[in-house]
Amino acid sequence: MPMKPLNELTASEIVTAIAAKQTTAEAVARACLDHIDAREPHVEAWHFLDPDLVIKQAQALDASGNVGPLQGVPVAIKDIIDTCDMPTEYGTPIHKGHRPRIDAAVVALTRRAGGLIMGKTVTTEFANRFPGKTMHPRDPARTPGGSSSGSCAAVGDNMVPLGVGTQTTGSTIRPAAFCGCVGYRPTWGDIRCHGVMEAAGSLDTVGLIARSVEDIALYRDVLLGVSPRPLAAKVIDPPRIGFCRTPFWDQCEYYVQRALENCAAGLAKQGAKVSDVTLPGDFKKIDDAHRWVSSFEFACNRTWEIEHHYEMISQTLRDNRLKDGLACSFEQYRDARSFLARMRRKLHDIFNDYDVLLAPSAAGEAPIGLNHTGNASHCVLWTSTHVPCMTLPLFAGPNGLPVGAQLVAARNNDRLLFEAARWVLAQYA
Amino acid sequence: MPMKPLNELTASEIVTAIAAKQTTAEAVARACLDHIDAREPHVEAWHFLDPDLVIKQAQALDASGNVGPLQGVPVAIKDIIDTCDMPTEYGTPIHKGHRPRIDAAVVALTRRAGGLIMGKTVTTEFANRFPGKTMHPRDPARTPGGSSSGSCAAVGDNMVPLGVGTQTTGSTIRPAAFCGCVGYRPTWGDIRCHGVMEAAGSLDTVGLIARSVEDIALYRDVLLGVSPRPLAAKVIDPPRIGFCRTPFWDQCEYYVQRALENCAAGLAKQGAKVSDVTLPGDFKKIDDAHRWVSSFEFACNRTWEIEHHYEMISQTLRDNRLKDGLACSFEQYRDARSFLARMRRKLHDIFNDYDVLLAPSAAGEAPIGLNHTGNASHCVLWTSTHVPCMTLPLFAGPNGLPVGAQLVAARNNDRLLFEAARWVLAQYA
Repeated sequence: MPMKPLNELTASEIVTAIAAKQTTAEAVARACLDHIDAREPHVEAWHFLDPDLVIKQAQALDASGNVGPLQGVPVAIKDIIDTCDMPTEYGTPIHKGHRPRIDAAVVALTRRAGGLIMGKTVTTEFANRFPGKTMHPRDPARTPGGSSSGSCAAVGDNMVPLGVGTQTTGSTIRPAAFCGCVGYRPTWGDIRCHGVMEAAGSLDTVGLIARSVEDIALYRDVLLGVSPRPLAAKVIDPPRIGFCRTPFWDQCEYYVQRALENCAAGLAKQGAKVSDVTLPGDFKKIDDAHRWVSSFEFACNRTWEIEHHYEMISQTLRDNRLKDGLACSFEQYRDARSFLARMRRKLHDIFNDYDVLLAPSAAGEAPIGLNHTGNASHCVLWTSTHVPCMTLPLFAGPNGLPVGAQLVAARNNDRLLFEAARWVLAQYA
Repeated sequence: MPMKPLNELTASEIVTAIAAKQTTAEAVARACLDHIDAREPHVEAWHFLDPDLVIKQAQALDASGNVGPLQGVPVAIKDIIDTCDMPTEYGTPIHKGHRPRIDAAVVALTRRAGGLIMGKTVTTEFANRFPGKTMHPRDPARTPGGSSSGSCAAVGDNMVPLGVGTQTTGSTIRPAAFCGCVGYRPTWGDIRCHGVMEAAGSLDTVGLIARSVEDIALYRDVLLGVSPRPLAAKVIDPPRIGFCRTPFWDQCEYYVQRALENCAAGLAKQGAKVSDVTLPGDFKKIDDAHRWVSSFEFACNRTWEIEHHYEMISQTLRDNRLKDGLACSFEQYRDARSFLARMRRKLHDIFNDYDVLLAPSAAGEAPIGLNHTGNASHCVLWTSTHVPCMTLPLFAGPNGLPVGAQLVAARNNDRLLFEAARWVLAQYA
């Protein structure tokens, strides 16, 4: 039997234990439900969770006799992602009671692999800025980050081993870093968004949250619809790492700057080829271009809600994203989009010299306050350039809360990103 | 009063006539309904049409006193696009009776502009190859093309002035050409697909069908969510036209080849700078790359239906798109996707010397038979390279049926495409 409580196992450990008949999907589900029962009042990660439905799913998985690649693994699904047997409300009272007809592609692929859909997790309003009820698992006065607030809090608190979020700005990496998780945003376009509410399609991706890099690699393959290929047993040779302070370095807390500088120096001592990367000056303008692209697309996508339920939209959303989007001309949008395409090509060339870049995941520990979700500037560069990135829970801040390091790889190099992340983690083991 | 019957007016003519109080939305709607009543048994363009709901909408539009940019214009919506007041069944019995909660972005934007959603038009199964019931408006033994079969047949038959379709392979341009319409596929990414069933997201666009280029320009602006800017009153100077026989030229009927060659020569005589363009040899491979990209994404997107209702999926879909998609490895998909990205950049450079390319829209007239939708190879090049294109009903085939000419512009040059199309049409007036 595994030594850890079942709710603390990783997805890979659960699959192995179930395959070895050391436990069952039902036992794992019950352990997670018990933990949620105790902790949910202090976290409020869940928008919908029906314990009976969870146990029913778990018993069906056990009865099936299958051992899928995610057999019996409980998964938290952000509530902007459609589920056919649970409500999906997109973080807004406008869609209260909505029950989609079918599962989103990622949900159907999770079930096909034997995964157990635990419930729906809290999202900000339409995956934008206006927060939901979730609190940081280690300090209820602090934000868990957003917009994938509930999925990150649930994984960080050991309620489930895997969570699905999305990222259009910093909605997976930032809350995953705040909650001490491994968070992953894939190469844009790899994982299908069918059945996921579109915020801004030219930037949206699904995001994955876990407590190990191996689990991320496993779940990614499941969501690509292919047979999982384990990461190489031996970690790769020391990677070529570009230490990238980014144009937003001065927005980082001093302890984030120190932690990353020490990390870069430490990894170099362990044999990594580490050098500084300074992004060309126009990368600073990515923040602004991202704003126009995401706002223009977001406002178009919310036309039905604007026309029918404007009074139920938060003032935060009206005064920021919607205002920007409705004010933006098509030409301004198109020019911003073309600018981002040029930045993608520039960044691609930079990756000739590096396997991964090392950069901040967020400005600091999760900030105090539940009326915001923190600064997302440290994610915008990578979101806008469509490259895969991952936050690793390497550091602690002055309050003992998690601080992440972000690794970024070239487009299509997601597996290399995972290998490099494992190498970095091994130096901290 | 306009001289033409109301159902034969273009969208722009309807808006003008309503603004001048020469007619009403209700009168236009009734004229369209009468024509549909007479013709529908011979065309079967509609999957859902409720005359009472149409009249109710029309009366509400007249009562509103607004004059939106599409005020009172009846629009046909392909039945893979969500409508909150009508069923949306995606061309499959699996989704019989499905009623979405909200309108797709394009539907909500149409209504905001004063457009009248006439009904839902027949699509092939999941916008793929297995055809619906629609017949060619001029010959019931022939296919109207697919997958936007109903929208193109309805516009071609003067049932409505505007139709919305989609295109992942050739699903707007091909049926629009067969049915004698102006068909337009926009620059990929311009028009939001929120609420449109995803076939293969990296290729999908909404497509527009009309009977004039001005209507397409008007409707595009509405769907971009911006104030319509009319095309310049005077047509542009003669455009620089690249006559592009494409690698699929030998799949064209002789009369298509002759018609296009005569067209190119004729336009040169009218002052256009016409020269031959030969695409580099690797453009031939686009067909194959498109197949893997579209199939891989399509199969992922249909996971729920495959898991729950495989027996209700047509043999055609199982044996082609789904089989390909499920057999394709992620690496093969990714390599094909990267290849298409390279072809996009190559094509972009070719456009340095041309305003538009002139190419076939389809292999010939609509072919006989209702168990297929015709050859789509003549669209795959442009679909895969994300460029805007338009089919113009310039020619007739040996049976007197429409044959289209396709104009193609560089990415983001949709307005230039419209101007060039107007210039070409003016030479045929």
